[in-house]
Amino acid sequence: MQTSNTLITRDSSGSLVEQIVRSVASRIDDKLLRTGARMPSIRQFADEQEVSRFTVVEAYDRLVAKGYLESRRGSGFFVRERASMMTNGNPVAQSTPPGQQLDVVWLVRNMFRQLPPQKMPGSGVLPHDWLDGELVANGLRSISRLNQNLLLHYGTPQGFLPLRQQLQLKLAELEIAAAPEQIVMTTGVTQALDLVAREFTQPGDTIFVDDPAWFLMFGSFAILGVKVVGIPRLHDGPDVAKLAELAAVHKPKLYIINSVMHNPTSTSLSAAKAFQVLKTAEEHDFMVIEDDIYCDMHPGTAVQPATRIAALDQLHRVIYLGGFSKTLAANLRVGFIATSHDMAIRLSDRKMLSTLTTTEIGERVVYKILSEGHYRKHVDRIRVKLDSVRDNITKRIENLGMKVDYRTPAGMFLWTDTGCNTNALTEKAMEQGFLLAPGSLFSPNQLPSTRMRINIAAMSDPGVWEFLEKEVGN
Amino acid sequence: MQTSNTLITRDSSGSLVEQIVRSVASRIDDKLLRTGARMPSIRQFADEQEVSRFTVVEAYDRLVAKGYLESRRGSGFFVRERASMMTNGNPVAQSTPPGQQLDVVWLVRNMFRQLPPQKMPGSGVLPHDWLDGELVANGLRSISRLNQNLLLHYGTPQGFLPLRQQLQLKLAELEIAAAPEQIVMTTGVTQALDLVAREFTQPGDTIFVDDPAWFLMFGSFAILGVKVVGIPRLHDGPDVAKLAELAAVHKPKLYIINSVMHNPTSTSLSAAKAFQVLKTAEEHDFMVIEDDIYCDMHPGTAVQPATRIAALDQLHRVIYLGGFSKTLAANLRVGFIATSHDMAIRLSDRKMLSTLTTTEIGERVVYKILSEGHYRKHVDRIRVKLDSVRDNITKRIENLGMKVDYRTPAGMFLWTDTGCNTNALTEKAMEQGFLLAPGSLFSPNQLPSTRMRINIAAMSDPGVWEFLEKEVGN
Repeated sequence: MQTSNTLITRDSSGSLVEQIVRSVASRIDDKLLRTGARMPSIRQFADEQEVSRFTVVEAYDRLVAKGYLESRRGSGFFVRERASMMTNGNPVAQSTPPGQQLDVVWLVRNMFRQLPPQKMPGSGVLPHDWLDGELVANGLRSISRLNQNLLLHYGTPQGFLPLRQQLQLKLAELEIAAAPEQIVMTTGVTQALDLVAREFTQPGDTIFVDDPAWFLMFGSFAILGVKVVGIPRLHDGPDVAKLAELAAVHKPKLYIINSVMHNPTSTSLSAAKAFQVLKTAEEHDFMVIEDDIYCDMHPGTAVQPATRIAALDQLHRVIYLGGFSKTLAANLRVGFIATSHDMAIRLSDRKMLSTLTTTEIGERVVYKILSEGHYRKHVDRIRVKLDSVRDNITKRIENLGMKVDYRTPAGMFLWTDTGCNTNALTEKAMEQGFLLAPGSLFSPNQLPSTRMRINIAAMSDPGVWEFLEKEVGN
Repeated sequence: MQTSNTLITRDSSGSLVEQIVRSVASRIDDKLLRTGARMPSIRQFADEQEVSRFTVVEAYDRLVAKGYLESRRGSGFFVRERASMMTNGNPVAQSTPPGQQLDVVWLVRNMFRQLPPQKMPGSGVLPHDWLDGELVANGLRSISRLNQNLLLHYGTPQGFLPLRQQLQLKLAELEIAAAPEQIVMTTGVTQALDLVAREFTQPGDTIFVDDPAWFLMFGSFAILGVKVVGIPRLHDGPDVAKLAELAAVHKPKLYIINSVMHNPTSTSLSAAKAFQVLKTAEEHDFMVIEDDIYCDMHPGTAVQPATRIAALDQLHRVIYLGGFSKTLAANLRVGFIATSHDMAIRLSDRKMLSTLTTTEIGERVVYKILSEGHYRKHVDRIRVKLDSVRDNITKRIENLGMKVDYRTPAGMFLWTDTGCNTNALTEKAMEQGFLLAPGSLFSPNQLPSTRMRINIAAMSDPGVWEFLEKEVGN
């Protein structure tokens, strides 16, 4: 076990025993300590942490009682297998080969651990020094100086109206006409996807996603009992022949697509592909859910062609999703749905029944930053910064013998091929305190893969490069 | 139609036509304008709003195109019936007699309209001048001065740890032992209930609730396809004989109960009843979900006996829910679940898959207010203020000939019997700009009722009393 100095902090609450129990338990929950791993001996642990052996004995005993560890006669203490949602009744996880412990929830939990950003090349967000904390903090201070009563009450069902009016303008620039009444604020795009999936599907129904695609969805849809089928993603959008073929077989209810700045490939949809997707959706009568969360990472169509399906369809068959977690601040939890007027009412009702209103605090902060013109400059800076590192990182990765699948001129992700099993690579990296994002996670079939997503904003740590050099370099 | 001055605000965005369309549409969505209602004539509308008749003609035409109005030859424009989630596929709404338009979503939408608080005797929250905006604003300012990076990222899966440590102390005072690892922060109690219901039930399963109970649940469970059965609530808790009898018939998965300061009756559970509920749950193998959102309105057991079932059970068969929307600020959206360690992991995973993390901003504000000792004084003040109005309002209500079902010594709600159909009463009140909370909403069968919930903190408007005097006084 990598016991670190932070395992026990002498000034924190609870006895030493409790602190050890809590730290070890959370490492097991985070799968930093994996099932079957052998714990350090009592003497070793006591020496490393500078505590008495009695303390360690008691802590280990409590961890056994809590089901975290098991004692094997004569050979010490081992991490026990524990119940987890994803291992019970989840069709995705069940199809994973036995012994292959990586799963969506595993990565999701690790994404949200407090690792230093430079230790997370697998992260889906920008490191905090790429964002602008002062901008967000100013927004918060400003709204806390305003009428304080606004802080006390629930917001309105569809969310803060002036922000929805700003979004109307933002969408108009993308040629999508959406009145404020057609927009519903959500707790990030995640809630938007959950609401839409619950609205349109029953257990046993099929949802199409890109393959590769944002992995969290697979977990969300699995717990709804919905079948997830992947459509191969090419450099300019999905394989539309395959889409039509699979639509005829599976009769999907929804197709969820990152049309622009697709995660993890950073590719965007061509006009021709956008038209084909919409035509197929009409022929086979499924809805298109266009997740445009990376919208503002896009450098403009002169640099990379990009067509939103919603711009063709005008929110009849397409439901458009967006948000500010990637570009502004995830903690504000501000996302939105743009759809027909009737569907906006239905989804807003559904949201109210799931979580009541979204927080107007975050919505007011985003409104202020958008309406005062700061947002545009801020995302311009992010794009410039991404551009300044992309080529160099791409070259260094290729020098290691890895391939970059699509050398796109924009975006924060590179979709790479390491030539080795990235599940094993990720496990090794985790032992050294790095978080990688193995390819298996991005595919609905979750099969082991040689691919890996790299966040180019999170490659500043020399240790990450040394690790890759050693493990995949030739 | 009651056209008000706020229908058109000359300085707001969009053309006059758009403004009229938007205002009328939102009034229809809020059911301020009910299906079948006749709109003012074009001339009348133009005169009242001081706009040209052409403007009104165009606005009405657009409202027809959007499906809000229909034109009947020779007799003018009428509000059209519109699609709503609750009228499609919702077993609760389907059992509502035809023509009876009140439903859960209707009240929920109206609860979240921006009516002045004194116009909402049916509201479930305290008016803002009963709360402390400065306390919350200070908290926000303080966290925006702190490390700004915390604002940029997702929080942690189970929520802000120091707040969970504070909640451990708070729960210990209620004799409920819950380590921080057993606590999961949620977007209010609403999300907690949604997560728990999704975890434990399948479509067709049965959930028990109190009758009367918090109406929003009925809508949440209806969209999950779950059957909701009410257990009659008496002055000291549920009718336990009925509970056992119905449990044998329905084999429920969950029983959701406001044990303390029950909404809408303000009654609390006796020790004997708490024991009986837990025993019945064990015999019939269902989980008890103890929603203690009104916890801090309780004046102490010397004034009103109150036993939490979780204190007897210690989070084995009981999942305990709480939050700060009622006492601190609903907009912070801070609620929590306390449960076994394993279930906390499962529910946290489930939350992540639905909405990702909760906002740490709100959690840090609550933490600060709790840990600095402000919270206790704040809720003491609220209780003193409620005590100062309760007797007088109870007397005035009884003088109108209404009955107060339980004259409890605490809480913000009175559960009254008006002697008349409160659905009709609520419709009349809405025409005059008041929001009432009719009894039908609080019962899972939603049958018309003579009962009504009154928020004693929202009875300051003389117009409300005049209305009640006229409509129900004898």
